[in-house]
Amino acid sequence: MSIFTVPPAASIGAPISDIDTPALLLDLDVFERNLDELQARADAAGMALRPHGKAHKCPAVALAQIARGAVGICCQKVSEAIPFIEAGVRDIHISNEIASPGKARLLAQLARHARMSVCVDDLQQVDWLAAAVQEAGAELTVLVEIDIGHGRCGVADLELMTRIAARIQSLPRLSFGGLQAYHGTVQHVRLPGERQQIIDAANARIRQARARLESEGLPCAVVTGGGTGSADIDFASGVYTELQAGSYAFMDVDYSHNQPSGAGVSSFAHSLFLATRVMSRAAGTHAVLDAGLKSMSLESGLPQVWNAAQARPDVVLACTGVSDEHCTVGRGAEAASTAGTTALSALPALGELVLLVPGHVDPTINLHDSLIGYRNGVVETIWPIAARGLSR
Amino acid sequence: MSIFTVPPAASIGAPISDIDTPALLLDLDVFERNLDELQARADAAGMALRPHGKAHKCPAVALAQIARGAVGICCQKVSEAIPFIEAGVRDIHISNEIASPGKARLLAQLARHARMSVCVDDLQQVDWLAAAVQEAGAELTVLVEIDIGHGRCGVADLELMTRIAARIQSLPRLSFGGLQAYHGTVQHVRLPGERQQIIDAANARIRQARARLESEGLPCAVVTGGGTGSADIDFASGVYTELQAGSYAFMDVDYSHNQPSGAGVSSFAHSLFLATRVMSRAAGTHAVLDAGLKSMSLESGLPQVWNAAQARPDVVLACTGVSDEHCTVGRGAEAASTAGTTALSALPALGELVLLVPGHVDPTINLHDSLIGYRNGVVETIWPIAARGLSR
Repeated sequence: MSIFTVPPAASIGAPISDIDTPALLLDLDVFERNLDELQARADAAGMALRPHGKAHKCPAVALAQIARGAVGICCQKVSEAIPFIEAGVRDIHISNEIASPGKARLLAQLARHARMSVCVDDLQQVDWLAAAVQEAGAELTVLVEIDIGHGRCGVADLELMTRIAARIQSLPRLSFGGLQAYHGTVQHVRLPGERQQIIDAANARIRQARARLESEGLPCAVVTGGGTGSADIDFASGVYTELQAGSYAFMDVDYSHNQPSGAGVSSFAHSLFLATRVMSRAAGTHAVLDAGLKSMSLESGLPQVWNAAQARPDVVLACTGVSDEHCTVGRGAEAASTAGTTALSALPALGELVLLVPGHVDPTINLHDSLIGYRNGVVETIWPIAARGLSR
Repeated sequence: MSIFTVPPAASIGAPISDIDTPALLLDLDVFERNLDELQARADAAGMALRPHGKAHKCPAVALAQIARGAVGICCQKVSEAIPFIEAGVRDIHISNEIASPGKARLLAQLARHARMSVCVDDLQQVDWLAAAVQEAGAELTVLVEIDIGHGRCGVADLELMTRIAARIQSLPRLSFGGLQAYHGTVQHVRLPGERQQIIDAANARIRQARARLESEGLPCAVVTGGGTGSADIDFASGVYTELQAGSYAFMDVDYSHNQPSGAGVSSFAHSLFLATRVMSRAAGTHAVLDAGLKSMSLESGLPQVWNAAQARPDVVLACTGVSDEHCTVGRGAEAASTAGTTALSALPALGELVLLVPGHVDPTINLHDSLIGYRNGVVETIWPIAARGLSR
C-alpha cells in the first residue's frame, strides 16, 4: 500500500474492537429492524414510503429501503441524487426548490436516467425547469411546496399556488405532480399531544389546498411530507400519499427525546454509533475521546455515551464537552452518587473504544465517507457514503 | 462528461457570479495579506511560525504558508498529515496525542518520509511510539503536552512530565523535542486585558515546567503553542519558540469578535466566504439560502451576511436561522429602522448570490472538497481540500 493511501478504518470479518477511530458503526440487526418496522407500518396504512437520502447519503442504504418496498427516495439537492442514480435508484424526488437555471439543467440531465420530481414555490423556478427539460429532451414531475406552518419555504397563498400548478401543467415536458407539505419543527416536538395539535392544523391547510387545486381541475396525485417524528400521526391522518422519513433508520439523541404517540407503537432503536477511542486521561477527572466537531454535528446537543457497549457498563459516562477534534467524557451524575470507585479508575482506559450516539444523525453522517456495518461484534460490510458533501 | 460526474462548482477564468452553490470562495488578495502579515510578525519576534493544517486541510494553503517562511505545519490527526506529505510538506507536528498502537504505526511509516513530531501525555503512548518506530526503522521527535489551564489534554504534574520526558529520551529512535502548551479557550476571550491575564498565568507554568526539565538535563528545543487569538501576546512573551495558528489565514465570525491587543496591531481580514444562492422568497418576509449545516458549522454561532458583496449593500441582511440545508436571512435590525422599502423588495432576488462569513472556519472547511480562489471577481484557482474528513 502506498504511503499516500489512508488505511481503511476496518476490515471485513474483523471484530469491531479493532476499528480505527473515529468511524461510524452501523448495527445491522437494529438497522434492518428499523427499516422493516417503518415499511410494515406504511404498508398497513396503505401509504407509500419514500425514505430520505439526505439522512444517509448512502446508496446501499437506499437499496435496502427500496428492497423492502420503498417507492424510491428523496434527495434534498440535485447533485446529491447522482450517486443514487449511479447505484440504480430510479425514482428520486428532490424535496426542495432549486436556486439557479444551472441546477435545473443538471436536474433535466438526471431526468433522462431516472424518474425525477422536484418542488417549486415560485413561477421563476417553473420557467427555469421548463427551459431545461426542453433543452435536454427530458420529462419532469413538478410539485408545488406549500407552507403548512413551518415558515421556511413553500407557498402560503392558495391563489398563487393554483397559478403555479396551472403553469406547470400548461408547459410541455413538465407535469404537475401534486403537493409537498413539510413541517420540520413539528418533528422535534417532544409530547405527542402537542405534535398532534400542530399537525391537525397543518393537515387542515393541506386538505384546503388540495380541494382548491381539484376544483380547478388540478388533482394531486401525490401529497408528500412527514417524517420520523410525525410518522404515527401521518399514517393515521389520510392526508399524505407518501411519507418522507430519514432518521428512523438510525435514530439519534435528538429523536430519542420524542415521546411515542400511542400505546403499542414501538419506537425505533439506535443503530448508528460514532466509534471513538480514549486519547488522554492525563487530567484525571475525565477522559478525552479522539472525535470532535469534525466527526459529529453538535447543533442539536451533545452526543450520548452508549454505556451498554462499555467494558464497565456499571459506570455511567456522560459527554461533558466537544471541540474540533476532542470530546470529553466524565462520570454521569447518576453513577457518581452511588459510586464506590474513584473517578480515575472508573474512566475508560487509554485506547479503549467508546461508542457515542450522535446528537443529530444527518449532518453527522455527512462528515464521514463510510458506514461500517457489523453484526454480533464483527464487521460485515463497509458502505461508501457516496453522496457525502454533495450539497449543490 | 458522464452523467455520474458531479459538475465542478466553478471554472477558472469565469466570474464568481457564475459559481454553483453552496461553495467556499477564497479572496486570494486578502488571504495572501493575512499570510504575509503573520509571517512578518513572527519574523520580527524571532519566532518560528508553524501554521495549523487542521484549519484548512488544504496542501496548497500549506505550501503558500511555507513559501513565506513557515517552518512546517501542524496536523491534529495522523491521517490528516498524509495529503500534506504527498504534496511535499516535509516537517509536520501532530499537535495531539494518539489513541492506539495502530496510529503509532501509521505515524512511524510517515516518519520515514517527513520529519514528524507528536505529543504525549502518558507513558503508555511513549511505549506505543517506541515499538512503532522500532518496527518501521524510523525516527520520531516526541513532545510532552502540558496542561496550562485549558483542562483537556496534557500533564499538569511536573513530576510525571519529567518522567515522561526522560523515558522518551532514553528510548532508541525517539528524541525528546520539548513542550506543547496550548490554551484553547483563551483564543476566544474577547478582551485583550483578560486574554493577557490568563496567558500570564499559563506562561508562568510553562517557564516552571521548562526550568524543571532543564534542571534534569532535559532541555526543551521547542515550546510550541498559541494561536490566532493570542498571537500578539505570544510574540511578546518570549515563552514559545513557535506559534501554531490556523484561523488567521481566513478569519471567521467568532474570531472577528476578539478585540485586538494593542494600538498599531492590525487584525486579520475575512478572506473566506460561503457562496450561497437564494432558493426561496415565498414567505415574503425572508429569503432562504441554499446552504445549511452540511455546508457550515454552527456551534460557534450563526454566519454573517457579507453585505458588502450584495447587489444592494445599502440593505443590511442578517442570518436568522440555519437548518440542515437551508439558511434564512432577513433585514438586519439596523436597516429595518431606517428603511423606506418594503421587506420583500429589499430581499435578494431568487437565484441571487449571497456570501456568508462562516461562524467557525475549521469545521466549515472540513465540510467542503475545494477552495475556489478568486481575485478581482474572477476565479483564479481551485484547490482541493485534500485532508477533508481525515480525522483518524
